[in-house]
Amino acid sequence: MWMETKTEVGEASRSRASFSRRALNALLLCTGDMKHLDEYMQDKLFVLQLAVWGLRGVARVILANNPLSGVLILAALYWASPWQGLLGTVGVLVSTLTAIIMGQDSAEVSGGLHGFNGMLVSLLMGAFSSAGDWYWWLLLPVCLGSATCVFLFSGLSSVMDRWDLPVAVFPFNIIIFLYLLCTGQDNPYFPHRQALPPGALEPNGTALIAVEVIRGIPLGVGQIFACGALGPSLLILGAVLLYSPLLAVHALLGSAVGTLAGLSMAVRHGSLYSGLSGFNGALGCMAVGGLFFTFSWRTHLFAIASAFLSAYADIALCNLLGTVGLPACSWAGTLTATLMLLMTGSLAAHRIPIGQVMAPEHNLRSRSQWAAGNTAERESTDV
Amino acid sequence: MWMETKTEVGEASRSRASFSRRALNALLLCTGDMKHLDEYMQDKLFVLQLAVWGLRGVARVILANNPLSGVLILAALYWASPWQGLLGTVGVLVSTLTAIIMGQDSAEVSGGLHGFNGMLVSLLMGAFSSAGDWYWWLLLPVCLGSATCVFLFSGLSSVMDRWDLPVAVFPFNIIIFLYLLCTGQDNPYFPHRQALPPGALEPNGTALIAVEVIRGIPLGVGQIFACGALGPSLLILGAVLLYSPLLAVHALLGSAVGTLAGLSMAVRHGSLYSGLSGFNGALGCMAVGGLFFTFSWRTHLFAIASAFLSAYADIALCNLLGTVGLPACSWAGTLTATLMLLMTGSLAAHRIPIGQVMAPEHNLRSRSQWAAGNTAERESTDV
Amino acid sequence: MWMETKTEVGEASRSRASFSRRALNALLLCTGDMKHLDEYMQDKLFVLQLAVWGLRGVARVILANNPLSGVLILAALYWASPWQGLLGTVGVLVSTLTAIIMGQDSAEVSGGLHGFNGMLVSLLMGAFSSAGDWYWWLLLPVCLGSATCVFLFSGLSSVMDRWDLPVAVFPFNIIIFLYLLCTGQDNPYFPHRQALPPGALEPNGTALIAVEVIRGIPLGVGQIFACGALGPSLLILGAVLLYSPLLAVHALLGSAVGTLAGLSMAVRHGSLYSGLSGFNGALGCMAVGGLFFTFSWRTHLFAIASAFLSAYADIALCNLLGTVGLPACSWAGTLTATLMLLMTGSLAAHRIPIGQVMAPEHNLRSRSQWAAGNTAERESTDV
Repeated sequence: MWMETKTEVGEASRSRASFSRRALNALLLCTGDMKHLDEYMQDKLFVLQLAVWGLRGVARVILANNPLSGVLILAALYWASPWQGLLGTVGVLVSTLTAIIMGQDSAEVSGGLHGFNGMLVSLLMGAFSSAGDWYWWLLLPVCLGSATCVFLFSGLSSVMDRWDLPVAVFPFNIIIFLYLLCTGQDNPYFPHRQALPPGALEPNGTALIAVEVIRGIPLGVGQIFACGALGPSLLILGAVLLYSPLLAVHALLGSAVGTLAGLSMAVRHGSLYSGLSGFNGALGCMAVGGLFFTFSWRTHLFAIASAFLSAYADIALCNLLGTVGLPACSWAGTLTATLMLLMTGSLAAHRIPIGQVMAPEHNLRSRSQWAAGNTAERESTDV
Repeated sequence: MWMETKTEVGEASRSRASFSRRALNALLLCTGDMKHLDEYMQDKLFVLQLAVWGLRGVARVILANNPLSGVLILAALYWASPWQGLLGTVGVLVSTLTAIIMGQDSAEVSGGLHGFNGMLVSLLMGAFSSAGDWYWWLLLPVCLGSATCVFLFSGLSSVMDRWDLPVAVFPFNIIIFLYLLCTGQDNPYFPHRQALPPGALEPNGTALIAVEVIRGIPLGVGQIFACGALGPSLLILGAVLLYSPLLAVHALLGSAVGTLAGLSMAVRHGSLYSGLSGFNGALGCMAVGGLFFTFSWRTHLFAIASAFLSAYADIALCNLLGTVGLPACSWAGTLTATLMLLMTGSLAAHRIPIGQVMAPEHNLRSRSQWAAGNTAERESTDV
Repeated sequence: MWMETKTEVGEASRSRASFSRRALNALLLCTGDMKHLDEYMQDKLFVLQLAVWGLRGVARVILANNPLSGVLILAALYWASPWQGLLGTVGVLVSTLTAIIMGQDSAEVSGGLHGFNGMLVSLLMGAFSSAGDWYWWLLLPVCLGSATCVFLFSGLSSVMDRWDLPVAVFPFNIIIFLYLLCTGQDNPYFPHRQALPPGALEPNGTALIAVEVIRGIPLGVGQIFACGALGPSLLILGAVLLYSPLLAVHALLGSAVGTLAGLSMAVRHGSLYSGLSGFNGALGCMAVGGLFFTFSWRTHLFAIASAFLSAYADIALCNLLGTVGLPACSWAGTLTATLMLLMTGSLAAHRIPIGQVMAPEHNLRSRSQWAAGNTAERESTDV
């Protein structure tokens, strides 16, 4: 009896343990880069494969590489505005399909690298349009712009490869400029709003509301997708958290740094409240803190420096481009991240080659294993 | 008798055949790159050599490399305006001579590579000058600007060589910007006209005249040389036809695509009528369709895409640069062609290394021979 | 007696000769790159080492690499304005210390390569500030800006190294743009003056004063440090003379060429009188005439061409950037010098690899020794 009971208890606890272990494993399977999904999808229908590539592309916008994050982000966009969600979906699909037709590298396509620029172009075309939602003619430039992103991605990658740099969102930034400049201010077919420089003075000196400023910090994460609502922004943050908690922390930190920089330069209140001051800081901080460099206290400090540089550069570019009615988009964050990747010295020692970049947690683990291996080797050679 | 008559007839038909064969051969000798002329000129007078190098430079502006095309183009320019013709002649000679003095690579000089930027600078200085024809002081900036092109060509080629890219007309675009910015709006010595952005609204909503728009298509080819008259433009098109029919077709096609893009963006009517909407499209289309890539239906589609991208980018740049009173020159076409040359994927498979670029027909023949050789080789190894 | 007297006289003359030889040696020790000082400083206090590195950084602004020149320049700056002198000192120290903390290459740090950009940023922040001297809050952007220079220097050097190009003052030019754009026109904390384009018309057509124009030539050398007083400018010229007489001659020559270019383009009188027209010409002339190329009559001609190109490009950039209220800083000189370093042909044959660049006199000597060695070798192989 005693033995039996013990066995039963043991079995129950074991089954509980195995259940929680299985639950943890299931959760772990959904985090990080989900490389195992690629093998699973290999012989599935093309439409299913395309969906996974597209979802990876959606997540790539915010530097994540996880289809489930992509699902969450897409849900957030449809929640914020179904029209914007539709535009984003069209953008990511059109540019991924264009890449396939143009015979781009299949590993790049399946990694979602040809989707995120197209998605951003579509979202921003929608956000700047002043023709209102469900203006179907907008799908024409959306499709053309998304397809053109593949041209620019492919061309720029030949140049950037020399320094092992990612193409990042340079194609998006160029295409959205071309679109806004092309259509001009009073285009009869595709009217759009002018960008307001952040240094523009308020009509009357209203006091700054602290709660609104703090609310702007998570909104800064949402603004990476041109989304200015709190709920969807938090869902987007959750999507990043699913991919990598470290990346999510850096996203919030960068957005806070960006808001701080905006405060120090006395930018428009609207810019602080809407999160527009924060999103470049978030991008600069995420790129350095964990993704392209192994996480350490030193990299962390560089990530904060990168966030400040991104944020100030964004204010500068907004003021410059505002004179010709253009938004600064994510030029500041992208240029700063590229600069950081080019740097020599102690930061370069932590750099991960672009081909081996994965979720920060994975980078950290593989680095420590590799370092441990090195130590073991050194010890063995000492003997 | 019968035999004799037959022989006579045979001889007559043979002589007719041999005459037409010789005429065809003579014509074929005048088309394409005329490499045989270089050997013939080797021990001739320096002035004659310089003339051939200069004429090659004149043709290089429109991506042709044939001294006879250069003669036709120069005739067209003198026909349109003797002053512009003179300026162009001075420009091409000054920059070629500067290159010789500065010890540039002799193969580049004899290929006319140091002439075409100088010629374009001179032509555009003349076209933008508001001091009228035969204003002799203009020869001062024309000579200085043409000579400076050699500096920029030489410096930029060191950078572009890394990616096997042509320097193209980047030096011209930079120098003409420097000149226009330097002299400013109200310069007492070198006054010039302001560029009008294509998005500028018409004084009154006049209807678009279809015939004028269609007339703008061949004018777009002439506008590559800043020439806005129909007759000379057709002669320039004839010069391209002499070098390569395929290139001429793509020039017209690109100009038509540019006009279409202009219509879709509702640009000024004057821009459509004068061919200014078309010439960047023509450049983008010619570079991809046949010259830097072997011609095939796939390259042809890319050439059309390149023409559209050039044309839209030109409208965007015109709107941007118009805010500071600058023209967009051929930045759009040059940048688009460079982007296309950098692209990876299925287009890169058709790319011809810069050192081996010749007339499209020659590229096609050498490619098919090479492909045939490959097949034969494979078959022989199979056996 | 006679013998003794003769000996005495001989001793006296010998001691005089040895004294003048020792004086000459002492002077020679103070000129050029003073490499011997580095060995001497190796085991000294860190503060002393930092001082030498900083002084080298101060001299590097004007392309010299000599701590004593740095002392003279710093004295000139304190003479012109103690506040500007203080800002410069803070800038050079902060950026050198940042480079040490960030683990930059120690040879670069000890050569002063991480100091000069920070110093220029600080000086220009002070010069553009409209808050008056001793506005202590300015030290905040001065420190941040100087530190950021190290990021840019490090990042840009990875790119420029591919073509063996120096980073030069690109970081300074970028950071000062970011600062001026960031703070905007009416910043409540850091107000600054707008840059006036040189093409701006005078209120009334006053006649040009020849003496003032000639006075502007040495002032052009001082304007490299944003110093517009004659005495300090001459002291700065003296500092360059101590490093290398050839460089000093080219500095004056370049400034004169720049003033000539300004006259030919009818720029504002104030621009000519203050030396602002000359300093880009001086930089362009110094870089080519002796420093990065072995001195010869051919290089000398190229140096004059480079000065003209720098000066005209500066006028063009001033007119362009003036439309958004930005100064052209030293973009023109830096870009022209970079272009010259990239050039192929007969100039490239005189180019000295960046790692071996020293004072022009030393370059000349090592070149002639090397050439002599080559000739001797050739002769010995002939035998």
